[in-house]
Amino acid sequence: MELLKKRILNDGKALSENILKVDSFLNHQIDPELMDEIASEFRSRFDDRTFNKILTVESSGIAPAVMTGLKMGLPVVFAKKAKPSTMTEEYYTAPVHSFTKQKDYDVAVAAKFIKKGDRILIIDDFLANGSASRALIAIAEQGGAKVDGIGIVIEKGFQNGGKLLRELGYRIESLAVIEEMSENHIRFRD
Amino acid sequence: MELLKKRILNDGKALSENILKVDSFLNHQIDPELMDEIASEFRSRFDDRTFNKILTVESSGIAPAVMTGLKMGLPVVFAKKAKPSTMTEEYYTAPVHSFTKQKDYDVAVAAKFIKKGDRILIIDDFLANGSASRALIAIAEQGGAKVDGIGIVIEKGFQNGGKLLRELGYRIESLAVIEEMSENHIRFRD
Repeated sequence: MELLKKRILNDGKALSENILKVDSFLNHQIDPELMDEIASEFRSRFDDRTFNKILTVESSGIAPAVMTGLKMGLPVVFAKKAKPSTMTEEYYTAPVHSFTKQKDYDVAVAAKFIKKGDRILIIDDFLANGSASRALIAIAEQGGAKVDGIGIVIEKGFQNGGKLLRELGYRIESLAVIEEMSENHIRFRD
Repeated sequence: MELLKKRILNDGKALSENILKVDSFLNHQIDPELMDEIASEFRSRFDDRTFNKILTVESSGIAPAVMTGLKMGLPVVFAKKAKPSTMTEEYYTAPVHSFTKQKDYDVAVAAKFIKKGDRILIIDDFLANGSASRALIAIAEQGGAKVDGIGIVIEKGFQNGGKLLRELGYRIESLAVIEEMSENHIRFRD
């Protein structure tokens, strides 16, 4: 998605070989119009599939997921990073390891929001080692649902998450894939 | 907002005099079409004011805030509940006390996203004791910005946050104000 790549080059900042800062339009300040464009792109790329639900993780996945939900007419469920006090009923959990933040945490979704037979589209802001996507897949499976597509705003192509998930048969649509990065340098995959 | 009140009565659940569960359409599963309607309502209610930025708090504020940002043509900044590892620069912080979760935490916004002279619209999912809104006001003031409006999806009118902020002169538009609540009973303010 050219608009997104241009935005990453203009307003993003590679801090190192691993860390990309896109906090001016994606994960701290959000550009709603860009989210709207991103949502249109996801709808178009997954035009050949039918879903009944979008699944994402708080917090940075919510903006692109909810815009995509509006375009595609789908409800959005976001996994929580801690079991909330009002989540008294049954819930599914799965562990996530964040390399960026060097920590492990569980994500949780109330069981009632994952139904047997659900065809789920995962939407997330980043795909790196794939730990968050795999946790969402595990949660979907716990509820007897199937993940039929994964839409990613920015994929770090130099980490193995995308490769691993594609080898497992998952259809991933990444709107920008970074092939290589270093301080103040970003190269996209063609 | 009648549509919202109806939805709260149909799909929300009062667990006690204080806790309202709206996790099927607002803060766990999200109904993007409802968010779209909510955004239209905020735009209409704040039609007489000019803002250049929306400020909210992760996570549940993001969906209504980003939809409102799209309708009003404004960027959205969400305060983070922990200082992220990629937030290396200067930031503003303020403490929040959550009565529902019985805990204190800080929220943080990178200083570069709050500019002197900014006219800020706060959007959040709930207003109860007003602690989150007051933290966002404090953050705005640290950056020399002014909060010119507060848009709330659901106000717990029986807690004192709304009263307190209105007495301080803040314009608050709450789309549904709950006057009184008990287990399985919800009464709205007229």
